[in-house]
Amino acid sequence: MKGKPRYGIVGSGALGGYYGAKLAHAGCDVHFLMRSDLETVRRDGLTVRSKDGDIHLSQVNAHGSPEEIGPCDVVLIALKTTSNTALPTIIPPLLGADTALVTLQNGLGNEELLASHFGARRVMGGLCFVCLNRTAPGVIEHYGHGALSVGEFKGPPQDRTMRLVTDFQRAGVDAKAVQSLITERWRKLVWNIPFNGLGIAAAANVAQVLNDEHLHAATRALMAEVIEAAGSIGYAIRPDFIDFQIQRSWPMGAYRSSSQIDYEAGRDVEVESIWGEPLRQARGGGADTPRLELLYALLRHIAGNRRGSTTLPSAVREALDP
Amino acid sequence: MKGKPRYGIVGSGALGGYYGAKLAHAGCDVHFLMRSDLETVRRDGLTVRSKDGDIHLSQVNAHGSPEEIGPCDVVLIALKTTSNTALPTIIPPLLGADTALVTLQNGLGNEELLASHFGARRVMGGLCFVCLNRTAPGVIEHYGHGALSVGEFKGPPQDRTMRLVTDFQRAGVDAKAVQSLITERWRKLVWNIPFNGLGIAAAANVAQVLNDEHLHAATRALMAEVIEAAGSIGYAIRPDFIDFQIQRSWPMGAYRSSSQIDYEAGRDVEVESIWGEPLRQARGGGADTPRLELLYALLRHIAGNRRGSTTLPSAVREALDP
Repeated sequence: MKGKPRYGIVGSGALGGYYGAKLAHAGCDVHFLMRSDLETVRRDGLTVRSKDGDIHLSQVNAHGSPEEIGPCDVVLIALKTTSNTALPTIIPPLLGADTALVTLQNGLGNEELLASHFGARRVMGGLCFVCLNRTAPGVIEHYGHGALSVGEFKGPPQDRTMRLVTDFQRAGVDAKAVQSLITERWRKLVWNIPFNGLGIAAAANVAQVLNDEHLHAATRALMAEVIEAAGSIGYAIRPDFIDFQIQRSWPMGAYRSSSQIDYEAGRDVEVESIWGEPLRQARGGGADTPRLELLYALLRHIAGNRRGSTTLPSAVREALDP
Repeated sequence: MKGKPRYGIVGSGALGGYYGAKLAHAGCDVHFLMRSDLETVRRDGLTVRSKDGDIHLSQVNAHGSPEEIGPCDVVLIALKTTSNTALPTIIPPLLGADTALVTLQNGLGNEELLASHFGARRVMGGLCFVCLNRTAPGVIEHYGHGALSVGEFKGPPQDRTMRLVTDFQRAGVDAKAVQSLITERWRKLVWNIPFNGLGIAAAANVAQVLNDEHLHAATRALMAEVIEAAGSIGYAIRPDFIDFQIQRSWPMGAYRSSSQIDYEAGRDVEVESIWGEPLRQARGGGADTPRLELLYALLRHIAGNRRGSTTLPSAVREALDP
């Protein structure tokens, strides 16, 4: 890679739009693949409203097809995982010899999906801790946070990992490299699996889950199952992480997870990446996860397949399942 | 007891109205405790519409208070368990020296509640396999079935058990005595716990549960937990009962359980008697029931306490819990 890296953003909703706008605002060469917002952004630009300071990009490299963008050095993937079936056709035109594919998506299985199509060597991932909403075409509201943990799919950080972190840091993002990306994904799931799941199945926000004696106990039991599942396939998380996650949840009050908000708004829920794939990996490791199994069965029935697209195609599932 | 036994019916909805009307129609001395339907039934009588033959009772012993009824030989209790808190005030005026209290209610804990207030010696129970609906005041629609299994709370059938069975049989009810009432209650729960519970939590009828690979597996796993729970406190059920229950469910098709119908109509759901009390008894026996625990937590939050009355009073819970 010579000179400035060329960034491609796949999935230019709130997440891709936000991190892409931060990078572009800092002078990076960023190309957005857009669908519904394309005409508006070409005409009016891209706006991020934030208490950290608003950003307005009047000139945006907004494209209607991956062919129009062409090869990039880094592709940030911020599609909702329920649209993952589109990736095998979106990605190829964006690939050069050393293109890094960085999935910023939720849950498990996204790195594996990219690796199965494009080779594990290209694949990196990022965990986003950020509250965003796309309030209008080309307009993103940033409510708070914004930290980003970046890592390699396989192995510890490399030079490219640190270059990506540096670009984000220069763009004002609280970015860091992590030693084990997949361990971090499991740690995030320790929270998301119970709170996003019970949020939907019990129609309960964080405070309601914590204050209900039985849902609270179910949350802790689910967290223990997720930790057991992660450990069974080699990603160790200490049991006292449960207390830590519970303690940090109390101040969230009536917070509703993104999955719960999606569900209540009638939008697709990322059932497979947040519950289905962790359950399949737990089974592969021989972990005992009866509550996760029941929760997945319920969520899959009530929130999955709203457009018939929440499950990975069977060929990919076979590649992922042991 | 001399001459004809005097029957009192507590809870004259569809269930109490149906079995009471059958007995009265056969010449038994039956006294109905009524609230909302009292005036209509006094004026117009009580009607059961059934393909087995309609029944119309023009003269009904319909009463507005238990004091008006006075002591009975047999009290049939057909209240919804969510109204169980009313029993300690309803029952005493109906008691004579040898009055039998026969709960026809769903789930577990009803015999124990009666025993804790009125002594175990008085308590009997019945399991009703019948499809009924109260379609208007004083009008009950009988859709099918009607079998009744009667037993003693403690021990095998006695003379009074057989007399009750005989009265029901003379009234055209397919009644029989059972050796272990509580074992039969657990056997019924092997079906009700998964199908009524997943029906509500997954908004799925019997066919949908059976045809969904994951809900089907969850159903079998929940059935195994219920069998383990029953066994842990001395009520043995063979494991092949699971296959039997699944096989007999296929022909039910799009059947929705009474709990699911109650839930979807915004009525109280019997969360404590069908899920809460079995879970507490399972814990007492040391059984491992993680799925039942999670299902109870969800149902309690979404379907319980709709009028603040679905849990037993704490004093009674202490008496029931080991």
